Amino acid sequence: MRQEIQIKTDKHNGLYDITTHIESITKSSNIKNGIVTVYVHGATAAIMIQENWDESVQTDVINLLKKIIPEGIWLHDAQDNNGDAHLKAGIIGPSENIPLINGNLGLSTWQNIFLCEFDGPRQGRKVSVTIIEDK
Amino acid sequence: MRQEIQIKTDKHNGLYDITTHIESITKSSNIKNGIVTVYVHGATAAIMIQENWDESVQTDVINLLKKIIPEGIWLHDAQDNNGDAHLKAGIIGPSENIPLINGNLGLSTWQNIFLCEFDGPRQGRKVSVTIIEDK
Amino acid sequence: MRQEIQIKTDKHNGLYDITTHIESITKSSNIKNGIVTVYVHGATAAIMIQENWDESVQTDVINLLKKIIPEGIWLHDAQDNNGDAHLKAGIIGPSENIPLINGNLGLSTWQNIFLCEFDGPRQGRKVSVTIIEDK
Repeated sequence: MRQEIQIKTDKHNGLYDITTHIESITKSSNIKNGIVTVYVHGATAAIMIQENWDESVQTDVINLLKKIIPEGIWLHDAQDNNGDAHLKAGIIGPSENIPLINGNLGLSTWQNIFLCEFDGPRQGRKVSVTIIEDK
Repeated sequence: MRQEIQIKTDKHNGLYDITTHIESITKSSNIKNGIVTVYVHGATAAIMIQENWDESVQTDVINLLKKIIPEGIWLHDAQDNNGDAHLKAGIIGPSENIPLINGNLGLSTWQNIFLCEFDGPRQGRKVSVTIIEDK
Repeated sequence: MRQEIQIKTDKHNGLYDITTHIESITKSSNIKNGIVTVYVHGATAAIMIQENWDESVQTDVINLLKKIIPEGIWLHDAQDNNGDAHLKAGIIGPSENIPLINGNLGLSTWQNIFLCEFDGPRQGRKVSVTIIEDK
């Protein structure tokens, strides 16, 4: 079972909590156990599991990546000025896998699923949610 | 098929080799081929595939992450003083997928599966091992 | 369905686009929908999804990792002088999961699949491609 969602992003760099979208897809699938693969179709975005108690960790993620991977100093900037976005996306990676347990996402209390935007804003980031049933 | 293990950690930052635990679960499953997803339920821990010839690489991992992501300088530290742990966990990620090949984990000679603790010690880190059979 | 490929690498550090190899395996499998797991069997190599418009991003990836993880300063260098390679491999990770959609890899226009070599050249890096069907 696979379903797509579109996430609008309004910042150049930002984390967007998409957990409720993924939950609603897993609920409506009626699959109880298996693996949920969340994949973003785009080479300047990523998926990260992270805390969402407040916005502090999200801001820390953006600031950390900005420090390690500064803007404007990459060979690829000669093409389309987003070398840092590609590097951030490549290191974080476009997907995460979460176990599905008795119909619920197997996230711990402080784990949420985030779309990481590194080259926004974008009208719609396409994210695929694939559920493989464990029979 | 899914099974949980609990791993006790005794350091604040440390890598713990859990390969034999995963192997014993895959053996007892009697599944021969597929994908094994190892997932840690916790936003300050991670799963990493790494060498285990001796402890040098594990110590290098901890030292590298400490250098890139220093303790005590993050916005999230105002909440619970573990901003660095969340950042390390988010970048390494909570899961790894290993192919299951003729009943054996498809690890190479120098690949072992490690639980990365970034905010220990903890009485029990819960790790899910899900095996999806390739029929 | 699982198949292995061998990739020859000619650089000490380099990215190798293996997308066409993976595509040819998924096509010949006749599986239409599911998850494709690409896994490199080696603790000094990794798999990364990245752009391949030209070689600029690949070079940027190598230069970024060289800056963050310098050669020759790690405890593990006392064993076999490749501490940096293990650290790079551990952080990028040995696998990626791509959705299979109507018989095609669900990559976006600018997403390609790369083998990352961090301790080459090597005669053959073994990569497993496992397709789990979504029935």
